[in-house]
Amino acid sequence: MKVALDAMGGDFAPEAAIEGAKLAIQELPPDVQIVLVGKEDIITNLLSEKGVESDLIEIHNADEVIGMAEHPTKALSQKPNSSIAVGFGLLKSGYVQAFCSAGNTGAMHVGAMFTIKAIEGVIRPGIAGFVPKENGDFGVIIDVGANADCKPDVLMQFGQMGSIYAKNVFGIDDPKVGLMNLGEEEQKGTLLTQAAYQLFKIDKQLNFVGNIEGRDIFNDKADVIVCDGFTGNVILKFAESIYDILKKRNLLDPFFHKFNYEAIGGSPILGVNGNVVIGHGVSSGTAIKNMLLQAQRMAGSNVHLKIKESLGA
Amino acid sequence: MKVALDAMGGDFAPEAAIEGAKLAIQELPPDVQIVLVGKEDIITNLLSEKGVESDLIEIHNADEVIGMAEHPTKALSQKPNSSIAVGFGLLKSGYVQAFCSAGNTGAMHVGAMFTIKAIEGVIRPGIAGFVPKENGDFGVIIDVGANADCKPDVLMQFGQMGSIYAKNVFGIDDPKVGLMNLGEEEQKGTLLTQAAYQLFKIDKQLNFVGNIEGRDIFNDKADVIVCDGFTGNVILKFAESIYDILKKRNLLDPFFHKFNYEAIGGSPILGVNGNVVIGHGVSSGTAIKNMLLQAQRMAGSNVHLKIKESLGA
Repeated sequence: MKVALDAMGGDFAPEAAIEGAKLAIQELPPDVQIVLVGKEDIITNLLSEKGVESDLIEIHNADEVIGMAEHPTKALSQKPNSSIAVGFGLLKSGYVQAFCSAGNTGAMHVGAMFTIKAIEGVIRPGIAGFVPKENGDFGVIIDVGANADCKPDVLMQFGQMGSIYAKNVFGIDDPKVGLMNLGEEEQKGTLLTQAAYQLFKIDKQLNFVGNIEGRDIFNDKADVIVCDGFTGNVILKFAESIYDILKKRNLLDPFFHKFNYEAIGGSPILGVNGNVVIGHGVSSGTAIKNMLLQAQRMAGSNVHLKIKESLGA
Repeated sequence: MKVALDAMGGDFAPEAAIEGAKLAIQELPPDVQIVLVGKEDIITNLLSEKGVESDLIEIHNADEVIGMAEHPTKALSQKPNSSIAVGFGLLKSGYVQAFCSAGNTGAMHVGAMFTIKAIEGVIRPGIAGFVPKENGDFGVIIDVGANADCKPDVLMQFGQMGSIYAKNVFGIDDPKVGLMNLGEEEQKGTLLTQAAYQLFKIDKQLNFVGNIEGRDIFNDKADVIVCDGFTGNVILKFAESIYDILKKRNLLDPFFHKFNYEAIGGSPILGVNGNVVIGHGVSSGTAIKNMLLQAQRMAGSNVHLKIKESLGA
C-alpha cells in the first residue's frame, strides 16, 4: 500500500511533513510506502539532513505550492502542478491508496470533489472530526465544516457514513448515532433537526439513539455525533481552545490530553471515491505521523468502498 | 425595589429558593425587598425553620406549581394560580421590578411573551447566557435556546440587545460584538450568518468586530457573542459539561471555577417589557442568591427600558 503525503502543506511544511514521515515509517506496517509529494530538491535535502534513508519513502515531484490563504478553486485551477493537485492525481490513478495533507483545507476539499469526486448517491461528502470520550474511546463527529448549511437527508447520510467509519476504523460493533440538538425530546430543535429526526427514526439499519445535547459530547450516549458543518466546526474549535487553555494553565490530565489534535492527526473526508485526510494547519511532526497512520488504517479497512456499497446509487 | 422569586421553581425547590433568598438579603442593598411567590404555608414554615426573620422578605401566595416537565403553554393556561403565572402578574402590574425562577424554562419564556410581552419593534426576544473570559471579565452570548431558527434581522437585534446589556449591567464601555461563525472571513458561513454579517456591517451604532469562531469564546475578541439559539444552546451545555468533568477530575482553577453556573445565577430574557431571569433547573441556594443579585442589577440599570428606547417601534 502507498500513502501520499503533501510535503508542502501546513504552517510548518516542509520540515514538519518530513519529520512526520520519518516518525511514521517506524510505526507503519512494512508493506506501507509513503509517497512525499512536493519540490523534489527540497525534500531530498531535508531527508538527508534528517538522516532518513529508507526504501519505504518515495518522492514524487510537484513544482508548485498552494498557500494556506489561497482561494481553493482558483488555486487548484491555476496550479495544476501544486502538491495538492498532483497528490489527488496519484490518488485518482490508483498509484496511492490514500492522500493526506495539512495544507489548505478548502483546496483539499475542492480537490477531492473535482478529482476523485463524490460517490454517486452521496449528496454531500462530509468532514469527520474526533472527540475523546470519558470512557476512553473516541467518538466521530460529522460534519465539522465542509457543509455549513445542510438538508435533513444530508444529515441522515452523515449518520450513515459516520457509523461506517466508526465500525470499520474504530472497531465499534454497532455504533450509536446521535443527532446534536438543543433538547432530548423528538419535537425539539430547528426545522432541520426536527425533519432529520424523522428520517433517522424510520431507518432500520442505523443504531439511532435520538437527540443528544451539548453536554453529551464526551459521554457515551453516542459514538457518532451528527450535525451540520457550522455546528460541528464551532464545537471542534471550542474544544481546541479549551485544550489550549488547560495546557497553558498546566491542568492537563490523561483525558484532556486526548483533546490534542496531534494525537488524532487529521479529519477524513467521507463520501468521496478515495481515502483523503486533512490535517490541522499547525500540524507538528507528531501530528503528521498520526495523520499518516490514520490514512493507512482508513485505506486498510476500505472505508470509502464500504460507504459506496451502502450509500452508492 | 421589589424582586419576585418563584419559590416553587427548580429541582430543589422550595428549599433551595428559600435558602437563596436568605443568602441574598445579606448582600442586596437595604432598599431591595424579595417577594417569595408560592404556597404560603410551606414558605412560612421553611423561613421559620431556617430562622429567617426579615422585613426584607415578603410572601405572595400562589396555590399551584408548574412542574419542570410540563408543556409550557398548556401549563400556563391551565394553572393561572401557579407561582410562575402569579409572578408574571406581579411584574406586569408593576408591583415588582423583576421576576426570576429556576423553574420550567419554557413556561418562563412563554409567560414573559404572554404577560409583559415582547417590546414592540423587537422581532424575537432572546435568552442571554454568560461566558467567563480569560481576562477576568464575563461575556454575553445571545441567544442560548429561545429561538432555534433565526433570521438575519433577529441576529442583528440580539447583537443590539446584548450590547445594551453588557454596557449597562457589566459596565463595558463600547462592547465588542462578534458574530459566531465557522471562519473569520466575511463570506464564510451559513446563508444566515452571511446575511447577518451584511446587516451588522452597515450598522453605525454597534462596535461590530466581525466573525468570531468557536476558539474565540473565552478570549477578548468579543464581549457579546451573537448566534442562533441552537448554536448558543450547544455551546453553553458543552461548556457546562466541561466544568463537570474538570470538577470530577479535580482540575478546577480560578478561571474554570467561573464556568460554574452557580456563580452566574441565571439567564435574562432580553427584549421583553420587564426584567426576567431564568435559573438553571438544578440551582442551589447559592445559584438562586446570585440570580436574585443579577435580577436586582438588571432592574437597577433599567435594561429593558434602554432596549425599548433603542429598538422600540
